[in-house]
Amino acid sequence: MVDEIMDRSEVLVEALPYIRQFSNKIVVIKYGGNAMEAHDLRESFAIDIVLLKYMGMRPVVVHGGGPQIGEILKTLGKESEFVEGLRVTDDQTMEVVEMILGGKVNGEIVGLINKAGGQGVGLTGSDGGMFKVERKVLGGRDIGRVGNVRQVNSGPVLAVADSGYIPVVAPIGVDGDGITHNINADEAAGALACSLGAEKLVLLTDVEGVLDSGGNRISRLSVAEALALIDDGTADGGMIPKISCCVDALGGGVKGAHIIDGRLPHAILLEMLTDSGVGTLFFH
Amino acid sequence: MVDEIMDRSEVLVEALPYIRQFSNKIVVIKYGGNAMEAHDLRESFAIDIVLLKYMGMRPVVVHGGGPQIGEILKTLGKESEFVEGLRVTDDQTMEVVEMILGGKVNGEIVGLINKAGGQGVGLTGSDGGMFKVERKVLGGRDIGRVGNVRQVNSGPVLAVADSGYIPVVAPIGVDGDGITHNINADEAAGALACSLGAEKLVLLTDVEGVLDSGGNRISRLSVAEALALIDDGTADGGMIPKISCCVDALGGGVKGAHIIDGRLPHAILLEMLTDSGVGTLFFH
Amino acid sequence: MVDEIMDRSEVLVEALPYIRQFSNKIVVIKYGGNAMEAHDLRESFAIDIVLLKYMGMRPVVVHGGGPQIGEILKTLGKESEFVEGLRVTDDQTMEVVEMILGGKVNGEIVGLINKAGGQGVGLTGSDGGMFKVERKVLGGRDIGRVGNVRQVNSGPVLAVADSGYIPVVAPIGVDGDGITHNINADEAAGALACSLGAEKLVLLTDVEGVLDSGGNRISRLSVAEALALIDDGTADGGMIPKISCCVDALGGGVKGAHIIDGRLPHAILLEMLTDSGVGTLFFH
Amino acid sequence: MVDEIMDRSEVLVEALPYIRQFSNKIVVIKYGGNAMEAHDLRESFAIDIVLLKYMGMRPVVVHGGGPQIGEILKTLGKESEFVEGLRVTDDQTMEVVEMILGGKVNGEIVGLINKAGGQGVGLTGSDGGMFKVERKVLGGRDIGRVGNVRQVNSGPVLAVADSGYIPVVAPIGVDGDGITHNINADEAAGALACSLGAEKLVLLTDVEGVLDSGGNRISRLSVAEALALIDDGTADGGMIPKISCCVDALGGGVKGAHIIDGRLPHAILLEMLTDSGVGTLFFH
Amino acid sequence: MVDEIMDRSEVLVEALPYIRQFSNKIVVIKYGGNAMEAHDLRESFAIDIVLLKYMGMRPVVVHGGGPQIGEILKTLGKESEFVEGLRVTDDQTMEVVEMILGGKVNGEIVGLINKAGGQGVGLTGSDGGMFKVERKVLGGRDIGRVGNVRQVNSGPVLAVADSGYIPVVAPIGVDGDGITHNINADEAAGALACSLGAEKLVLLTDVEGVLDSGGNRISRLSVAEALALIDDGTADGGMIPKISCCVDALGGGVKGAHIIDGRLPHAILLEMLTDSGVGTLFFH
Amino acid sequence: MVDEIMDRSEVLVEALPYIRQFSNKIVVIKYGGNAMEAHDLRESFAIDIVLLKYMGMRPVVVHGGGPQIGEILKTLGKESEFVEGLRVTDDQTMEVVEMILGGKVNGEIVGLINKAGGQGVGLTGSDGGMFKVERKVLGGRDIGRVGNVRQVNSGPVLAVADSGYIPVVAPIGVDGDGITHNINADEAAGALACSLGAEKLVLLTDVEGVLDSGGNRISRLSVAEALALIDDGTADGGMIPKISCCVDALGGGVKGAHIIDGRLPHAILLEMLTDSGVGTLFFH
Repeated sequence: MVDEIMDRSEVLVEALPYIRQFSNKIVVIKYGGNAMEAHDLRESFAIDIVLLKYMGMRPVVVHGGGPQIGEILKTLGKESEFVEGLRVTDDQTMEVVEMILGGKVNGEIVGLINKAGGQGVGLTGSDGGMFKVERKVLGGRDIGRVGNVRQVNSGPVLAVADSGYIPVVAPIGVDGDGITHNINADEAAGALACSLGAEKLVLLTDVEGVLDSGGNRISRLSVAEALALIDDGTADGGMIPKISCCVDALGGGVKGAHIIDGRLPHAILLEMLTDSGVGTLFFH
Repeated sequence: MVDEIMDRSEVLVEALPYIRQFSNKIVVIKYGGNAMEAHDLRESFAIDIVLLKYMGMRPVVVHGGGPQIGEILKTLGKESEFVEGLRVTDDQTMEVVEMILGGKVNGEIVGLINKAGGQGVGLTGSDGGMFKVERKVLGGRDIGRVGNVRQVNSGPVLAVADSGYIPVVAPIGVDGDGITHNINADEAAGALACSLGAEKLVLLTDVEGVLDSGGNRISRLSVAEALALIDDGTADGGMIPKISCCVDALGGGVKGAHIIDGRLPHAILLEMLTDSGVGTLFFH
Repeated sequence: MVDEIMDRSEVLVEALPYIRQFSNKIVVIKYGGNAMEAHDLRESFAIDIVLLKYMGMRPVVVHGGGPQIGEILKTLGKESEFVEGLRVTDDQTMEVVEMILGGKVNGEIVGLINKAGGQGVGLTGSDGGMFKVERKVLGGRDIGRVGNVRQVNSGPVLAVADSGYIPVVAPIGVDGDGITHNINADEAAGALACSLGAEKLVLLTDVEGVLDSGGNRISRLSVAEALALIDDGTADGGMIPKISCCVDALGGGVKGAHIIDGRLPHAILLEMLTDSGVGTLFFH
Repeated sequence: MVDEIMDRSEVLVEALPYIRQFSNKIVVIKYGGNAMEAHDLRESFAIDIVLLKYMGMRPVVVHGGGPQIGEILKTLGKESEFVEGLRVTDDQTMEVVEMILGGKVNGEIVGLINKAGGQGVGLTGSDGGMFKVERKVLGGRDIGRVGNVRQVNSGPVLAVADSGYIPVVAPIGVDGDGITHNINADEAAGALACSLGAEKLVLLTDVEGVLDSGGNRISRLSVAEALALIDDGTADGGMIPKISCCVDALGGGVKGAHIIDGRLPHAILLEMLTDSGVGTLFFH
Repeated sequence: MVDEIMDRSEVLVEALPYIRQFSNKIVVIKYGGNAMEAHDLRESFAIDIVLLKYMGMRPVVVHGGGPQIGEILKTLGKESEFVEGLRVTDDQTMEVVEMILGGKVNGEIVGLINKAGGQGVGLTGSDGGMFKVERKVLGGRDIGRVGNVRQVNSGPVLAVADSGYIPVVAPIGVDGDGITHNINADEAAGALACSLGAEKLVLLTDVEGVLDSGGNRISRLSVAEALALIDDGTADGGMIPKISCCVDALGGGVKGAHIIDGRLPHAILLEMLTDSGVGTLFFH
Repeated sequence: MVDEIMDRSEVLVEALPYIRQFSNKIVVIKYGGNAMEAHDLRESFAIDIVLLKYMGMRPVVVHGGGPQIGEILKTLGKESEFVEGLRVTDDQTMEVVEMILGGKVNGEIVGLINKAGGQGVGLTGSDGGMFKVERKVLGGRDIGRVGNVRQVNSGPVLAVADSGYIPVVAPIGVDGDGITHNINADEAAGALACSLGAEKLVLLTDVEGVLDSGGNRISRLSVAEALALIDDGTADGGMIPKISCCVDALGGGVKGAHIIDGRLPHAILLEMLTDSGVGTLFFH
């Protein structure tokens, strides 16, 4: 029993250098996939975020919501077309996107964080003109109200975070005419992390991390190594945009970027506060 | 032409004492009804809010959304029952309420304010646990997820307002178990105004103001006079809760409360910055 | 009647973009001429200043006082000589200048502002060594205690303005030996505006503005156009120093400069807050 | 020579407990009489004020100007009547008072302080509505624009002092209609000291201090002893109002009050920083 | 392996409510006994302190040093007499006390904390007059320079802690004549905790905690229960002063007090951040 | 008697320009030699420091302690070897150094300052890792735990000084492994002065100042002149390192450096606040 107690203290001690390193730093976490669906994982996610907060970091959550949007559209009998993984978004679809992301998913995440003992505050990218976008064009094709982030005003996030709250951001942006657009959540998280000068960008995914050609997880990747994995075809189609997102974030001033396995409970804590991570760290 | 120019300056000069009186003060505006539906009124509302902001006040918007919710429910083939004017809210209805209020209406108002030159930031009453509610019971009957505000944490509103943004609040609250509830928007606005120690509570309505027995608008009403109007039956059923809301706000420390005619363009400016108001002012 | 009410709101709405643009900005107003003499104009001037203050700007008044000085000197039987429009200032004259500007005119303006609901605080250019001057020499001729501003310490003005007061400055400066000198009020206002990094310099005059060769007021003048008007002889002798003052202020970092007709009531409001100005705006 | 050097250090060391006691404290000094007229005394006064400032106190000067006013009135052929030592002040006289106090004397004192290495800023009691007065009535007789201080707004003095400047205040006040009035400088200094919660009130006079019945200076007087001196007739007519002023100041919260001999160079330093004072200290 | 990883996260998650509760709170830790002597325990102590710091608390260390003092005195051939457990302290002994506590032990603890990644700053109770004492008298007997704490100036501790350093305090105080005295470290820690309004007082000891009559550790004790243990003789002579110290601290406003077993590595972490503590908690 | 009083004021007035010049500036004083041993000089030193503090400067004391260390070592029967004036410091010697400097001398100086009315706070160079050192090597010879300052963290000194305390620093540093080392006090004072951007470095010595070849004190020396004195052999062996220390401090950004005669009472005041200094000033 004393031994077991001792083991407990060892875990806390192991966390010390990480806590020290990230003290008062901003960590942007893209929340999505399984971690957003399974009940247990949702709770463990919220606890992780609140724990980071109380350990002195400033976590910022950016969330997706594709499956929830798809489900409602199906109920409404509306089928979506996808181009290169992006949903073609007409006006009716965008109305659903805003209601689901801004009204349902965002509020639920705030509720989870509040329940875990933190104080979440929901925002969307149109609050304070946070995400300014331009319409995305894919291979000359207009895919509707889908935007590329052109400019970020991180003011609302800082206003909320500096008052002790945990910002939870839905990836919706506005163009120059004030028209709302859907943004890919990874891209929104990356752009926000750059604008905030974040210490970390963490992408929660449904895979183990980046895999080498033998199918084993790679713990650490330099930018050069990451680009090589794309070039030589090791990285598959689903992973490429995530790798690019991390590489871009590093280029934009973020200190480190992680792709981690959101299917593991407390994946964020394990990756950030223990020596044995549970994903892939990208570094300069 | 010179005469006309002179007239312009007179209007500005007439506004001076009001601007002085409200300088740096918080003004909570309940936004609803026609003013939220007609295109022109929506624009004039947003301009009024932004103008108050630039004239040195700190406006806070609380909005309703009943018609928009009803419309969607109808589309979904779901009929609502009403008890004493309140929608009986089952879980499915509440899901729609959250999506419409938090995801659609809230964002649209933020967008209007941004377009008028201000910087809105949307919040719901679950952000930072802003509105804590208990389930409302009407005559012994449970009407579902409808809540009475029991406690207000105005922290998120102040965090946003003190950073130069205009808070736009959806009237959703959470009970002790973190379950979201619908709140009457007038009640939410009144409770928030009290918690903020607001100078003013302004309810935008679809009527001219409080009418006397002859059907003429009453410009100013003391608390005692207001209560008398209810007692003697002059105030009709629709007006009674609004009068009560204003009287309660005065009791809770708000300096003045207004019921104004939201069907007039720039009703807020006219009531707050000119000698000839366009509604009924309640005072101690 | 409703129409008339509507018109009122239009004026306020028209003012919005100007109020927004000048929010928290410093506006230096040179006050002189008729606007300082006629009773009605004095009151309307004070109201304008107080209104700018409450609309979120930071007005700073610099005043002249030539006629009042002349009047006293006449009473004392002392005739002044003028060189290029500047009063030759011997020691006895300077004593009168200080008493009239610092003791009489300055206090009266403070009183007007206080009466209009603001809080004025009078300063002279010797307070805190605000205006450091060197003796002016005109064509090799010494004209007595008349100074050119060489250096400005805007500290006392900021101390007063940052505490919520409206600074009212008499154009008196000191040389390196601490000897007081008279300064041209336009020049003092311009130098102070530059030192404060003001948004606006506004010169109240007794003319309609800058006129073109046909005698019509010019609404807007670029620096190049203004200099051309001097070169080609369109600008007359009285106007040239005022144009130069505006051009110099723009060169010193002030964003815009106005020559306006102080004979119109509320000229400042009309020029600054309505689309149809009442003078000439100089811009880069 | 070494001995002489040693003596120097003794003086500094003797000053230590006083400097410590008054550190960061407000000291209001009424400046008047000979100390304002003789050239050497004027310089030594200014040095004393600047030294107090640099030793960490916050000196505030309130000045009179009776002789200078009288001189000008004589030049103008206007004779003043005095009632109980107060000048009957008609409108023409008041105009002279304002010009002399606010425009001449105030500026000269600011100039002296600047020359001694400090940074003075002149204020009058109408700045920011500092001194609110009601018309004084003496034995049922109206003596014109002479006021009793009823209320003090010490805001402008603090704005100036907190920015590192030394406030120099002319004893002019305004009544409820904004009409300026003359105030006795001792009374103005006392009222300001109370409003500021000053540590010290120091009245510079042309006498040695309060004298006992044998004609010897009394170094320290309790309030009770001071009142006894008035009751038993020891204090003469000129001294009584000064004693009353000190007693009132103590009653209003000032910690100590001094009547000192302004005819001695550096009287302020000697009274405040050495063991052997040069006047009379009033204490509770 | 995944299981083991999961266990790690559980420990962190278990710590969350404690971290939240103690966020930004002051925790005063009395450091002494074995924990100060064994090499491993010294390191684990320092890590615990640094970890508390990075988890957002403000730890303050107060240390003893009896054994080290005794050792030197033995080397010097000087035998100490003890009265009720307190060392009779003559002048020569006090000189040794100051050198050992202030010069050796204090510096070593600062060094340990620095090595563990924190930034310690050593203080003694004479710094800034932190501990004012009066000479202790035991049963009418003078035991030399041993003091009771009469007054605490926590200013130096706050100055250091508010700048991000960890204060390490040696229990030396001064009497009214500036003479240094030895203070019992438990008493010093308790008095400092009260003065700081600390959340916690933690006494590191060489026992398991407070034992019941059966010799088993008691996890939690109310003040009443603690006093009963003294009254009924369950608490032995060595434990009584420690219990009294904790009870006094609670009486002085400290929220909770702990007697913990300093012989266990990371005893502080285990008691403060895990559900299963390792000592006795005193509560109101 | 009046004459004598006048003389007192003259001394204060003479101090004015110095007080003004040093207002709010940091002055680092190396305290050592006779001034630390003779009872009267100790008291006069403490008074000087407190007086500087109350006159608005921020004094920082760095002290030596060689004689006190030597005395104890002699008592312990341990003889020190010296190389180029530096004590060869083995581990046992270093233990004594830490106890004497950090535990005895430092505390005594704090006590002296407190007694004189200031609030001292003792620090050593290991607090907050203030002095980072590397082991000194003299002519290829290891002289034990004697360090050269390589890096200074002035944080702890500023934390203490900005809270109104007077920092008293013992010259102990730590190397990269956290091992404490002895530092020459002059060198420590110089390095700290550079790191703090001090206005002044003052070395208290047991000589009159720097002497010329005729044996007369030199009042002022430029850097070039100082170096020439070393080159031409005028400066003797004991003086050379002190001159070098002053020259290095000037090179590191300190505005002025003084070598003064600590055998004179109040030498610091006399050098800093009177026209006739008592040592040698080094200037650029």
